[in-house]
Amino acid sequence: MHGLMMHDQLLVSDILEHAAAVFPRQEVVSRSTEGPMTRLSIAALRDRSAQLAAALARLGVRRHDRVGTIAWNNQRHLEAYYAISGMGTVCHVMNPRYSPEQLVYIMNHAEDRVLLIDATFVPLIAALKPHLKSVEHVVVMAPSDAQPETPFEALNYDDLIAAEPADFAWPSDLDERDAAGLCYTSGTTGNPKGVLYSHRSTVLHGMMAALPSVCGVDESTVILPVVPMFHVMAWGIPYAALIAGAKLVMPGPRLDGASLFELMDAEKVDMAAGVPTIWLGLLGEMHKRGRTPEGFARTLVGGSAPAPSLIKAYEDMGIAFQQGWGMTEMSPVGSISKIPPQMAGESDARKLELKAKQGRQVFGVKLEILDDDDRLLPHDGEARGRLCAKGPWIASAYFGTDKSPLTSNGWLDTGDVATIDADGFVTIVDRAKDLVKSGGEWISSIDVENEAMACAGVAMAAVIGVPHPKWDERPIIIIQPAAEDPADKDRVMAHLAGKLPKWMLPDDVIVTEALPLGATGKVQKNVLRDAHRDHLSGAA
Amino acid sequence: MHGLMMHDQLLVSDILEHAAAVFPRQEVVSRSTEGPMTRLSIAALRDRSAQLAAALARLGVRRHDRVGTIAWNNQRHLEAYYAISGMGTVCHVMNPRYSPEQLVYIMNHAEDRVLLIDATFVPLIAALKPHLKSVEHVVVMAPSDAQPETPFEALNYDDLIAAEPADFAWPSDLDERDAAGLCYTSGTTGNPKGVLYSHRSTVLHGMMAALPSVCGVDESTVILPVVPMFHVMAWGIPYAALIAGAKLVMPGPRLDGASLFELMDAEKVDMAAGVPTIWLGLLGEMHKRGRTPEGFARTLVGGSAPAPSLIKAYEDMGIAFQQGWGMTEMSPVGSISKIPPQMAGESDARKLELKAKQGRQVFGVKLEILDDDDRLLPHDGEARGRLCAKGPWIASAYFGTDKSPLTSNGWLDTGDVATIDADGFVTIVDRAKDLVKSGGEWISSIDVENEAMACAGVAMAAVIGVPHPKWDERPIIIIQPAAEDPADKDRVMAHLAGKLPKWMLPDDVIVTEALPLGATGKVQKNVLRDAHRDHLSGAA
Repeated sequence: MHGLMMHDQLLVSDILEHAAAVFPRQEVVSRSTEGPMTRLSIAALRDRSAQLAAALARLGVRRHDRVGTIAWNNQRHLEAYYAISGMGTVCHVMNPRYSPEQLVYIMNHAEDRVLLIDATFVPLIAALKPHLKSVEHVVVMAPSDAQPETPFEALNYDDLIAAEPADFAWPSDLDERDAAGLCYTSGTTGNPKGVLYSHRSTVLHGMMAALPSVCGVDESTVILPVVPMFHVMAWGIPYAALIAGAKLVMPGPRLDGASLFELMDAEKVDMAAGVPTIWLGLLGEMHKRGRTPEGFARTLVGGSAPAPSLIKAYEDMGIAFQQGWGMTEMSPVGSISKIPPQMAGESDARKLELKAKQGRQVFGVKLEILDDDDRLLPHDGEARGRLCAKGPWIASAYFGTDKSPLTSNGWLDTGDVATIDADGFVTIVDRAKDLVKSGGEWISSIDVENEAMACAGVAMAAVIGVPHPKWDERPIIIIQPAAEDPADKDRVMAHLAGKLPKWMLPDDVIVTEALPLGATGKVQKNVLRDAHRDHLSGAA
Repeated sequence: MHGLMMHDQLLVSDILEHAAAVFPRQEVVSRSTEGPMTRLSIAALRDRSAQLAAALARLGVRRHDRVGTIAWNNQRHLEAYYAISGMGTVCHVMNPRYSPEQLVYIMNHAEDRVLLIDATFVPLIAALKPHLKSVEHVVVMAPSDAQPETPFEALNYDDLIAAEPADFAWPSDLDERDAAGLCYTSGTTGNPKGVLYSHRSTVLHGMMAALPSVCGVDESTVILPVVPMFHVMAWGIPYAALIAGAKLVMPGPRLDGASLFELMDAEKVDMAAGVPTIWLGLLGEMHKRGRTPEGFARTLVGGSAPAPSLIKAYEDMGIAFQQGWGMTEMSPVGSISKIPPQMAGESDARKLELKAKQGRQVFGVKLEILDDDDRLLPHDGEARGRLCAKGPWIASAYFGTDKSPLTSNGWLDTGDVATIDADGFVTIVDRAKDLVKSGGEWISSIDVENEAMACAGVAMAAVIGVPHPKWDERPIIIIQPAAEDPADKDRVMAHLAGKLPKWMLPDDVIVTEALPLGATGKVQKNVLRDAHRDHLSGAA
């Protein structure tokens, strides 16, 4: 027996129309690709999105088609998000840091019919264009008077939408399960895999992200997504902000510490979200200036686990440091690290330890640890298992492939190994494939890295397991020293010796100028493993 | 083309299981019907709910059956909410203030198979029991050692669940559209009509209610629903609180100002929700003590429009006064009144005026004003139309009747007449049926009542239109004077004369000891209209 409620669908267009109806005067502030700041009301955002939808329809884009974007976080990219999903087509965001081969593969696999790009990426597309099989139109998201020269036929965004009416009617007959967004994720092997978000998953994830326990946004919030819109829909912040009526501040292409500091200071950003490397950059700038940006109160940090030393540095400056954890297949937010009020009395050290965990599942996501037979393991803080997720914004399949990310009983296997304690705190021990198997013992590369990162003069550190004639595998550590007072092997070993049991100590410390980073800013451990495969083959 | 996300359903049982997984130590504090306070962890709440579900299954309750409750806001009622909906049956909450005839009608119409009642209502059920056609078991929600004498066969709640296992498996094959809750609403004519909430509507409404712009609850919140659980599921607070991990404080049967003050003070309640009459009572107590309860920061007020004088009295004491508006058919929240930051510079008088409006639609609800031909009217603050709503927690039909609450184009007609301005602020001019039609002009009974409520010595005021030989209808006002320094006709007329245009002034002031209140605490204007129908028939 069904309830007697309206069957209204959860649609991305409803987010935009809601915001325009009740927050018409709220601002979206962006640093444009050309340099100057732009300011736009939500009422105008709605109108320009509707104009873009009308223009895309005129270009022949039809329901369920994919429209690709390669762009920074800025006003036009936001308009495109809402226009593309709102009109019933799929907003396919692409990370420009993927290799040219990967980008060609992705665009051909997605069958993108139209590409919307920032001027920055004209050279990139010029190189790829001959290999793109489905792209019919490329639109450069530039003002009319700043259209760059292109060695391929291209449309100008502002010209394209100028003549279109703002009363485009969003289709109301969409099913909330219809696809709204697409983002490819690169594994270490094989081609990137597409995660296809639905209207339902996007709206539900956006509502969750706006909750006080996650981003906690309302009309008084000024929120800066440093996390790129080409990366998992900027963690859903473009949706959460409009659901809640927050002021969005977009950083454009300038993500260095000084640029971010200036932008945050000028716009009184109180909440900013991004990956740890961004916060390292901003930390340097804050130390240099001896102060924090005015109004800056909270961060949401994800993408990779922040070192406890980074968390402490922010908290010491009075900025609440919240770690979120998730993945592309999870839209992406799965858990968030906050100290519950029942633990307010714990020591600072214990609280820092909790904050360095991945936190507790957000409402809507179920997290469990499974053993090798897909059985649920207890939440006792001891049992280690494959961290698995379920929920309405968790992927059930990849786009256009038969590869399933699910366990036999329908859980998404995240590829992480974790514990969950009685209060629901998840601690990722390691990526399953990054665990070091030394003799009969497992060594968490993350544990060793976190200790190494706390050593003076270490900027970044990566631990990998390499084959060892006696112990099967032993850990070695590759460090990228800080520019000032750089650490060397002896200092790192001395530092670690006091902190870790002897069997967990790396067998060697390798100093490198720059660790290899992937498209999303994570250390590419597979590259390191390939390079150092034989490093301990002579050991006894 | 569908997205590739898991088809996980939004179920009420997920709220409870989420809360138990991540907020197991959070407390639910209740004043029991017997008097003493009870404290329960969410982990224990989950277990007792599961035990109750197992017990109901043992009694023969099957999926989609209705289980009725007549109870105060307390721990066992909360356990029942989650047990009944969680097991796939329908939690039918009943207002004990309905007339005996209405209650009999409701229970027979709903075909309740089991009744869960507080000891308070044993005499009520004793009188009704012979007329109840479907009720097989009555369970008194009392401790084992406090089971009251009953003149009918009754089970004891704690005895019933004691032997049951806590590992009852909530059915996972429920459809989110399945019915989860049922609440009858009484019109002024005809039998009460049942509004049948779904799992989907309940979960979505709960998420919305937890948002910063609405109740704004997280783990640090201590929230007191004074609004009864027998009235529109206590505005969804039992769900929002567990979604967010807030501490729930339940007032039991004692809703007078002194009892509420003591409870709030003891438990450091920072957010409380209820109808204006409750806040009048608490205001008296705060004035008497010369202070507010410790920690008390915010109210959510709904059910009927609070007088601006009440809003101002709370704001003057430093308590944020938020008005919510909605109805049983809307689960109930449709709009909330907050001052957007863009209006922070407005005068206090203008802000008070905005706060006295019904506010702006919450995310998930669309509000529009329609003309008599069901066409949408502009949001210009001038056009008056029938206030209509759409959304996933808005009723599309009534349970077991053919009566439709919908317009020709699928909107729920709320029965209110309103304006909407360019910022989305809804102002209800009046109930459509309460507007006074004087000559060619419409007079809002609410406008006149608000002015009269600001007159010293007026406790409550109700304006009705009565037939008039010359003007078709003219307003008269019936006032209930305050205990101290009671107002009389002359004072009220003198007060109004300076505030309202002459043609809006009531033709008479009638002083009464007590205005007739309906089951939900609203003035019964139909009773007043019947009583005073001929009051102006001799006028010229």
